[in-house]
Parts: sequence; C-alpha cells; structure tokens
Amino acid sequence: MKKPQSHPQFLSILFLPLLFLQPSGATADEGMWTLHGFPSSMVETRYDVKIGPEWLSNVQRSTARLDGGCTGSFASSQGLVLTNNHCTWSCIRDLSTEEKNLSDEGFLAATREDELKCPGARISVLHDAEEITEKVQAATEGMPEKMANEARKSLLSRLESECEANDGLSCESVNLYHGGQYFLYKYRRYDDVRLVFAPELAVAAFGGDPDNFNFPRWNLDMSFMRVYQDGKPAATPNFFPWYAPGAKDGDAVFISGHPGSTSRLETVTELAFRRSQALPLRLIMYSEYRGRMLEWARTSDEAARQVQQRILAVENAIKVWKSKLSSLMDEEQMGRKLLAENELRAAVMADPELAETYGNAWQDIERAITAFEGFYDQYSFIEARMGFQGKLYRLAHTLVRGTREIEKPNEKRLRAYRDTALPRVEQELFAATPEDPGYQELGLSFSLDKLREWLGPDNEVVKAVLGNESPRDLAHQLVSGTRLGDAAYRKELWEGGSAAVQASDDPLIMLARKVEPYAMELRSRYDNEVEAPLKQGSEMIAKARFAILGTNVYPDATFTLRVTYGAVDGWTEKGQQVSPFTQIGRAYERATGSDPFRLPDSWLEAKSRLNLDTPYNFSSTTDIVGGNSGSPVINARGELVGLAFDGNIHSIAGDFWFDERVNRTVSVHVAAMIEALNIVYGADHLIDELVIKP
Amino acid sequence: MKKPQSHPQFLSILFLPLLFLQPSGATADEGMWTLHGFPSSMVETRYDVKIGPEWLSNVQRSTARLDGGCTGSFASSQGLVLTNNHCTWSCIRDLSTEEKNLSDEGFLAATREDELKCPGARISVLHDAEEITEKVQAATEGMPEKMANEARKSLLSRLESECEANDGLSCESVNLYHGGQYFLYKYRRYDDVRLVFAPELAVAAFGGDPDNFNFPRWNLDMSFMRVYQDGKPAATPNFFPWYAPGAKDGDAVFISGHPGSTSRLETVTELAFRRSQALPLRLIMYSEYRGRMLEWARTSDEAARQVQQRILAVENAIKVWKSKLSSLMDEEQMGRKLLAENELRAAVMADPELAETYGNAWQDIERAITAFEGFYDQYSFIEARMGFQGKLYRLAHTLVRGTREIEKPNEKRLRAYRDTALPRVEQELFAATPEDPGYQELGLSFSLDKLREWLGPDNEVVKAVLGNESPRDLAHQLVSGTRLGDAAYRKELWEGGSAAVQASDDPLIMLARKVEPYAMELRSRYDNEVEAPLKQGSEMIAKARFAILGTNVYPDATFTLRVTYGAVDGWTEKGQQVSPFTQIGRAYERATGSDPFRLPDSWLEAKSRLNLDTPYNFSSTTDIVGGNSGSPVINARGELVGLAFDGNIHSIAGDFWFDERVNRTVSVHVAAMIEALNIVYGADHLIDELVIKP
Repeated sequence: MKKPQSHPQFLSILFLPLLFLQPSGATADEGMWTLHGFPSSMVETRYDVKIGPEWLSNVQRSTARLDGGCTGSFASSQGLVLTNNHCTWSCIRDLSTEEKNLSDEGFLAATREDELKCPGARISVLHDAEEITEKVQAATEGMPEKMANEARKSLLSRLESECEANDGLSCESVNLYHGGQYFLYKYRRYDDVRLVFAPELAVAAFGGDPDNFNFPRWNLDMSFMRVYQDGKPAATPNFFPWYAPGAKDGDAVFISGHPGSTSRLETVTELAFRRSQALPLRLIMYSEYRGRMLEWARTSDEAARQVQQRILAVENAIKVWKSKLSSLMDEEQMGRKLLAENELRAAVMADPELAETYGNAWQDIERAITAFEGFYDQYSFIEARMGFQGKLYRLAHTLVRGTREIEKPNEKRLRAYRDTALPRVEQELFAATPEDPGYQELGLSFSLDKLREWLGPDNEVVKAVLGNESPRDLAHQLVSGTRLGDAAYRKELWEGGSAAVQASDDPLIMLARKVEPYAMELRSRYDNEVEAPLKQGSEMIAKARFAILGTNVYPDATFTLRVTYGAVDGWTEKGQQVSPFTQIGRAYERATGSDPFRLPDSWLEAKSRLNLDTPYNFSSTTDIVGGNSGSPVINARGELVGLAFDGNIHSIAGDFWFDERVNRTVSVHVAAMIEALNIVYGADHLIDELVIKP
Repeated sequence: MKKPQSHPQFLSILFLPLLFLQPSGATADEGMWTLHGFPSSMVETRYDVKIGPEWLSNVQRSTARLDGGCTGSFASSQGLVLTNNHCTWSCIRDLSTEEKNLSDEGFLAATREDELKCPGARISVLHDAEEITEKVQAATEGMPEKMANEARKSLLSRLESECEANDGLSCESVNLYHGGQYFLYKYRRYDDVRLVFAPELAVAAFGGDPDNFNFPRWNLDMSFMRVYQDGKPAATPNFFPWYAPGAKDGDAVFISGHPGSTSRLETVTELAFRRSQALPLRLIMYSEYRGRMLEWARTSDEAARQVQQRILAVENAIKVWKSKLSSLMDEEQMGRKLLAENELRAAVMADPELAETYGNAWQDIERAITAFEGFYDQYSFIEARMGFQGKLYRLAHTLVRGTREIEKPNEKRLRAYRDTALPRVEQELFAATPEDPGYQELGLSFSLDKLREWLGPDNEVVKAVLGNESPRDLAHQLVSGTRLGDAAYRKELWEGGSAAVQASDDPLIMLARKVEPYAMELRSRYDNEVEAPLKQGSEMIAKARFAILGTNVYPDATFTLRVTYGAVDGWTEKGQQVSPFTQIGRAYERATGSDPFRLPDSWLEAKSRLNLDTPYNFSSTTDIVGGNSGSPVINARGELVGLAFDGNIHSIAGDFWFDERVNRTVSVHVAAMIEALNIVYGADHLIDELVIKP
C-alpha cells in the first residue's frame, strides 16, 4: 500500500459516541465531489499532490456528459470525444441494418466525411454553475409541504428559462444533498454527434455478462465520437493529452464524470423500501425479460441483431440490482447505517433549537414511504410505464401528455415538459431512428403481461387496456397498426397539438389516451403524498447534517459533474491479493472461441504484432458509480491515463456506502488503447490527432 | 363470523412478558396436526363437534399421498382416487404425444380398460406410525455433532430396513419438531396408478398464473386416478362418501393431507438466510427460465406442448417465492418472530438446568447458517443440481452416484440410496417415460449458463464442465449424444454397477462423473458443517420448547399426514369483505376467450344445461400449504365437501406463520364436481361409482 495511512477524524462537538458521526469521505478515498466543493487539502494530505483551480477548470471543460447516462472526455481540440463502447451502443444499433451490423464488425471512419451521425445523440459540457439555494428556500419558506413542492418546481422552471434567455446556454437546476443546496448548471450543448471509431463488440465486451463487474478483466470498452457545430468539427480547446505510460501501482488518479445516482444520504427507511419493494420488483421482472430476449434472439439473425446489446444492458442491470439487494441484506452494514442515523437524530434531539426545526424530518420520510408502499406497483407499472415498455409507447405517451402540458404556462407544467426540457423532447420525437418492430412487440407484449401479473386481472387499468385480448395479441395489433414509427407523423401530431392527438385513431395513441387519466392521478398522488414529504424531510435532514457536521460532506450523485480521487490499487479477495493490472497477452489465453469469450478476427490476426505485455485494464480506489462510464482517468498533471468502464463487484454497494477495502474502479489502460489503435486498427489518423505524451 | 371467539391463553409459569410464549395454534384455526397429536378437545371447544379416534382412523386410511408432492383421497372402495388436476400433469404429459395432447383435450376413460397407466406414478397410504424417539436419542447421546449426525442417519436406515422386513410395508423414518420426535411411518404403496379422468387444462387452471393464489376463483382443478393391484383395481374399503350440498358459510371443515414443509419453528437466523440468499437466488433464476420457456414455446406447437404445464408450475413457484420474500421483508412479522424467540431464549436462560442443556442451541444454528452462506451457491448449483437441470442429467447423476453407493453397506450409504429408498430409485430409472429432448436441451442449456453466471467463469467446476464450449452448444451435444433416454440402456448400466457406469462413454454419464467428486465434497461439507450443527441446535430448541411449553404444539410440515381444522369463511381485503363462495355462472362472464381466460368448448356447449348457481370454489380458514394440493375437505361426519387446490395470496406466508385474519384455503366445491361430471362430461359411470349423499 503506497497511500498514506488514513487517520480517523472524530468530531468532538457533541457528547455522543461519535463512531459514525463524521463527514462521509473524510478519511478514505471516498466521495464524488463537486468542483465547487473539491477537497484539495485532503488530497494533498493523502497523496502529496496539489490540485488547483486551473486543474479543476480544465477538467470541467474537458469532461463531457452524454445523454443516456454516460461521460466522455475531449481527446483533441477538434471535438473528438473518448467514451466507452457501451455508451455508444444505441448509436451503433441505430446505424446498423439487417445487412450491416456495426456492432459485430466494428467501425472506423477513414476520414471526417465518413463519420456517421448518431440519431438523437447529444453531448453537453458544463460551462458554469450558479448557486440558487437561497432563492429556492425563500420561495418555499413556511409553506405546507404540498404547496412548497409545487412552488419549488415552478420556481426552478422559471429560473431555468430566465437563465437560458440570458446566457444562451442550456440551463438545468440541480438539487444537491437532497434539497440542501440548489444550483443552476449551465451547459454548452452539441446536438450533432458522430461516430468515429468503435471496436467489435466481442473485444469491447469480451467476457460478456459472466465477466461484467469482475476483475481481472480484458476489455477494450472504448469508442470515439466527435461533436460537430454548424456541420464542422467543433472547436474544443480544453482536452486531455494522453500520457502513454499510464499510472503505476499506487499512483494518485482522479476521475471526472457524471455519476448517476447514489443513496448514501438516504434514511434507513428509504433503503429498506428499496430492499423490500423496488429491487425485488425489478429483479423478478427483468430476469424474465432477459430470458425472453435470449430465446427470441434465437429465432432469426435479425432478432439477434435487434437485441444483442439490449440483452447485455439488461444483464448489466440485473447484476447491479442483485448485488444491491444482497448489500442491503447485509445486516452488519445496515446496522451501521442505522447507528449513524440514530446518532444524527440524537444529536438533533439533544439541541432544542435543532430539535424544534428538524426533529420531524425522519417521520416525514417514513410517512412518504408508507404512502408509496400503498401504490408503488401501480405507480411503477402505469405512470412509470414499466407496463408499457418500448420506444413506440413512450412516443405515444409523450404526444398525449406533452401536447396537453405545453398548452399550460411554463411554470404550471410537469417538469418534463418545461420550456428548457422541450428541445430534448422534440429531438426524440423528430429523430428518424429505426424502430425494430420485432423488439418493440416483444417488449410491449412482455410488459403488458407483467402489468396484468403485478396489478392483477381485476385492476381497472388492466381491464381497460387488455379488454378481451391477450397481451401477445394486443401488442401485435398495436405495433403492426401504429404509424408512430414514422417521424413525420409524430411531427404532424406534435405540431397539431392536443387537438390532433385527441383526434388521432392511431391504436397506440388511443391506448395512451385511455391510460392517461389513471397515470395522471398516480402522478399527482406521488407528487403530493410521496415527493412532497420526502423533499421536505430530506431537506431538513440535509440542513441538520450541515448544522452538526459542517459542509465537508459530498452530496449524493445526481448525474452532475463530480471529481473523485484515489490510487491505482488491487485488493484482497477471499485472502488472495488481486493485482491492479492485466496485460493484453492474457486475453488470448482466456479466449475460448465461444461467445462471450471470443476475440474478433482483427485481434487474432494482430496477435503476433502486438506487445502482449501492454497493460490492458487496471483497478483503482476511486469512488464511482453508473454514469461514470466513459469517464477519463487522469493524473495529477491533468493527463489521461485510463478510461473508466466498470467497477468490481464490490463497487455496486457504492450506491449505499463506500468500502475502501474492496470497492474498485475498473478502467482501460491508456497504453492498451494506443496499442490497439496503432496495431489492430491501423487508426494512424486518430493517433495523429491525439496529443500523446511519452 | 360464526366461530367462537378465541381466548388468548397465556402461560404463567415464567416471570416474563409472555406475549408470544404460547403454544402455536393454541388460539386459532392454526396447526397441521399429526393424527397422534390431534387436538380434539380444542376443536370441540371452538366448533362444538366431537372428533374421535374412529373418525381419525378412517381419515387416515382414506387419504393418499402422491409421490411428487400431492395428496389424494379415496372416492370409492375400488381404488378410485380424487386429486387435483395439477397433481396429474406429469402423468398427462407422459401420456400425451405430438399428435394427441390430453392436457388440452382432457381425458375420460369410458371403461376400466381405457384407464391409462401413469408411468412412474406411485401412491401411498399411511398404515401405522411407531415412535422411535428414544432409540434415536439413545444412539446419539453425548456424541459430538458430526458423529451424532452420522449415527442418526445410520440408525434410521437400519430401522427402516428392519421395519420393511418385519411388516411387509414401506417404512419411512419421520423427523418431527426438527428432531424433537422421530417416528417410523409405515405405508401401503401402490405402484400401478392409472388416469381415469382429467378435464381440459383451460378449465382446470382457468385464469392461469394471473388468477393463481387469487380468490374469488373458478377452477375445476380435479382429476381421478385409480390404484391397481395385481392388474386389478385395488380394494380400498376406507373412502370418503361425497356430501352433495357441501358446507355452508361458517361450517366446521377439516382437511387431511401431506403439507410439504413449513418453517414456523425455524429460528430468525434461518428465516433471514431464506430472505437474503435462498429466495433471491430462486426468484432471479427461475424468472429468467420462465421467460425462456415462454418464448421457446412460441417456436412450435410441439415446443408449446412440452412446456405448457411446466410453465404453469414455474409460475406457481415464482408467485410463492415472491410472496414469501415479501413476507420475510415484513419487519413487523419478523419483529414478532424475534420477540417470541428472545422470550423462549430468555426462559431457557432463566432456568440454570435448561440453560446448561439447551443454552447453546441458537449459536449452533447461527454457526451452521454462517457456514452455509460461505458455499451456498456452489452447493445449490453443483450438489443440488440447479446448474444441471432436467431429467436426463438427473438420471446420469443417479447412475453415477447410485452405483457407487449401493456397493456400500446399507447403513453407510447416503440416505437417498438406502435399501428402503431403492425401489423408488429403480422405478424412475426403469420407467419408459418420454423424454422431450427439446425441453431437456432448453433446461440444460439454461442451467449451465446459470452455473457459469453464479459461480463465475473461473470456478473450477465451471471450467471443467464447459471447457471451451458455450452452454448452448454443450447442452445440444449432450442431449443429442446421450443414450440415457432409453430405459433399457439405463437398466443395463444400473445392473452393470459402477464398473459399467465408469466405463460408459455416454456424454452425460461422462459429465456426471466429472462433476461427482466436487459434488461429493460439497455434500460432505454440507453434512458436517451445516446439517450436523443445524440438527443438533434444532433438536435442543425442540426439547427446550417441550420443556417450557409442553407438547401442545404442532410440528412443522414434513410431507407427512396431518389434519387441520377451520371453517368456511371469507375475509376482509383492503376494507372489502370477500365472500367465501363463487358460482359456476360467473366463470362464463369472466371468460374473455383468450388464454388463460378461455373456457373449453365442452363448457361453452354445456352452458345452457348447467345450473349456473352451483357453488364452484370456496374459501376456508384451514391451515394448509403446498403438498396439501388434492386434499379432501371433509365435514365433521367424515364426508367430502370439497377438494383443496390452492390458498389465497396470504396463505403463502403460512410457510412462516399463520395469520387467521387473512390466510385462506381455496377448494373446489363438491357440488361443482358433481355438476361437471354429470352435465359437462357425462361421466355417469363415475357418478355411479361414488357414494353421493344428498
């Protein structure tokens, strides 16, 4: 271990056994820090490196957010974006046809002209962040929770619109610490994103689901895209040079990116709800869907093509949920959570003023969760559309709900249809992406069946939706009868507004219209009975935590820009030390020739020319979660040394807590990317475009 | 409510808040009572009916146990057995062919000669029970747990063999109260079982999975079989006459049968293990399998035929596990369990003698569970064969292991191969049942894939089994290459003993040989590290419970004969009163024409001739679980008034506790069976054979 030993720092302001009452992340490589709250002094103490504002600013401008839930980093001044292969799957699928499967074959644009536009893709770069906590808190001061919840959402819609009008950027309000802080994040957005390079799926996802979340690993999970502006490669003066030797065992490394969500500040009540309802529902439901997709894929090559990456995505989700459920069943960890929560509550109750102001926060949350338990399945299947899967129904739903909503004043709308959200809504509605009707029918048929299973055949929505049809027959009629696969028809309906949508005889639109009143009722129950008390309680707890622990705490992940620090490091698994590096050569030994342990021909042919000792993947103690996929791993000089694509199996519990002993990030080593681009793919023009430091 | 109010009976021998320390079942319609421990006086108090030894003895001789996990009842003196349709599915499938699907068409033997033999079916009737607790306890007295565990199993094998030699009956040792009592149960066995009548699946399982475990219900889940002896219908002087009017709301009813297993006397540690590992594994695994079967069924009519009932069986299991998981997530119920356990422990610790003798029992169990957690997945997939699904591999395993085991002296063998178990082993090996190769390949391919998923691609068994093959390819090679579908070849191998099996080049035999050393190692770890301390701890707890609470407690279910009592009764669901009866007419209204809400043609044609007001299904407070399927519902006069086939959704938690407020048995009403036999099926000869009381 080359890192300095950590020193527990207990607070002593309270007369309590403060075993757990310490700022999270204070004593470990823990924390997904905002750039405005980055703990540079802690990093200096632990790793003896100085991280200054310039470094942070360059990292901010060099890090990209990909719609769909990933991160990327600029790799040149000409808009070249490095990300994971798995972050480009939907683009690759949209660009593939029955005849040409880019996923299997891989893709390399020989020239800029050959770069292929990804339908519907969008990339954003954080330009600026403005704190608006006081405005939000002033606007809701003293209001009852339901009114406060509405006022808060209205204000955020208004502030976003004003921001976009003033700054010419895309503005999103951001809620940190579950309501403890609010910001306006201002992004530069790129709507023209093109695919530049993608290796074959067989090497990008070598080992498939069996190896997913495992380490040692041998994956080239990389792609290049490029952002365009006005039809030309966008100028991106901030980017990361690549440091060819990479990082050594024990070196400090940093990861910038957009971790999607964590639940570390949630109460035990909220975690128990995930354990008892949210996770079992998902695991049971999507395990069946996985089985259906796997067998359906065998019915034809085209079916296989339509679902190959979707299967991997579902398998990934199942592994995540399974591991989360198992983590939340760990009585020791849950006991620790409960103890920490009880200590915070006791500290609040010990101070009359805090007790008066924040003492009821935990009951607010319990009330919200109890209410949600009463209609969670209905909410999930109907309003959250687990019972109506697939893009076609989503489009129908957007048309039905969206045309109604946009007739209201901006601040009265559901947040999904506020002015600042509309460009994204319209981008999806109008993009001419292929529809894969076989897959759409499979998904809709499956989910209608689950709708009936989970809500019961006597539920009124189930009866209204199915009538006398079987889920299978109904899905077939809907998918074969709808015109919503046609972007022009969608545009016509959207522009015709709610009158056009209400008059449409498209079967999917008719179904979405039938479901809408039930869905809206559930939405409103959720907003008033769940969201309102949850927001109120969470905001109070956040403030109580600030009051007692100060602000040296990082907020839960919210798919906004964060930086985490740590070191290249292995760990001890069942008594065995796991080395932090793998090499290219071992991939050839592991390859059996059968999927998913099959290397593509390009790699088999290149074997003799490759340096088989090149480092391939590596592990580090950095604290990341889903959403960090595609994140740059950088050194203290701000050079790229790797590409994060996964964590080990213990990283999944990172949703709830960070266990530095075993939680590891898994990344592609920079040397492996250079070696593959050079030797396997002959991508000299890309190598030339990169700034590679020897 | 027509039942007398229950009066809590608290024990006062201890200075403890004895809220939970009362004999289970003392104050409710709770309890799966043995015939030798039936609480007649309690029943008299609650229902004002006298249940004497003669009544019990007739019930014992009139109730049948079906191998495979069901119950039946004699319906005439000529061996006619009433059971559930779903208890005859494997027979129906074995008798069906690609051309003739008896499941869809139903079956009615016009004459005795037309009754079709069910391959491999076996029915047993309990003749006598002999207590051997003292012998077992004397044989293990003072031994360390591992030695005691082996000595106990040896003794039971020996006692069973001696019993069979003396009594000419089939003898099985039975462990009640988790080791608190031991018995030899002596059965009369029938190996020639024939199918007499089965309605169409569409009416037997009307509503399919969506309605399963629901009530109100409209299912004719009945079949008739007949036991034969020496090629002739067996004489069965004990049988139930049918009481045509059935039971009224509030009437006392009794159910005899073979509840499979419950966990009500298990410790909280054991229940927590089910919640955290056993149930999630099953739910995740079989939900995927369900999806695979559903899609595979669509590839051809023959595929659909092979899996139609198997899908229902898996769906049933998933619903059960899902509901069990949800029950064990109920913090209130689990808290109650923990409180009761803590009270029992405190009572033990408060008495120095009890504390000395039984005080460590709970730690023994914790030790066993902790050990099991360390290799549960390996044990499940390898030794319990979750990774090697299907009949063909099971046969290979039986041949590999069985031929080795039977070379040992009886008392040294694994219990599955002791002398008294061999007839059953050989019956399965030698029976010429169809093999459904498509389904076998599906199951093996699926489970090999899960073997790799759960144990990881680097597990040594996974590597030994798969080598460079994909699960799919390997399963195909194994199923298409094996000769184990041929009963003659199996017989040849079995009779050739281990020499023949070791020399065989059959690919499935070779695979089973490869797995066997790993499996045996896991078996032995399980026996020594899990079973031994679990048995020791459980036996101690049972004795402590007897010492403190007396023997007025019923044992957990063990697929041995029990009688439960209760009343015809509905319940209150979310504020709504559920009536205990449905009528035939409503089934026609519920029928949509699409599976699973489709009535068969025979019912559509008969509609005008049926009395639509005939009671169809009904609910009662009787305490049953899986294994009671096919149980007779009888009145205090010993007449049949119904046929139990299910419980409501709350009955599933009956594995862990009995909640009389909501736990209900669901049965087919006797009047509906008579009406259907008469009007829909014209089964006059069967009606004539029954003794029907008006």
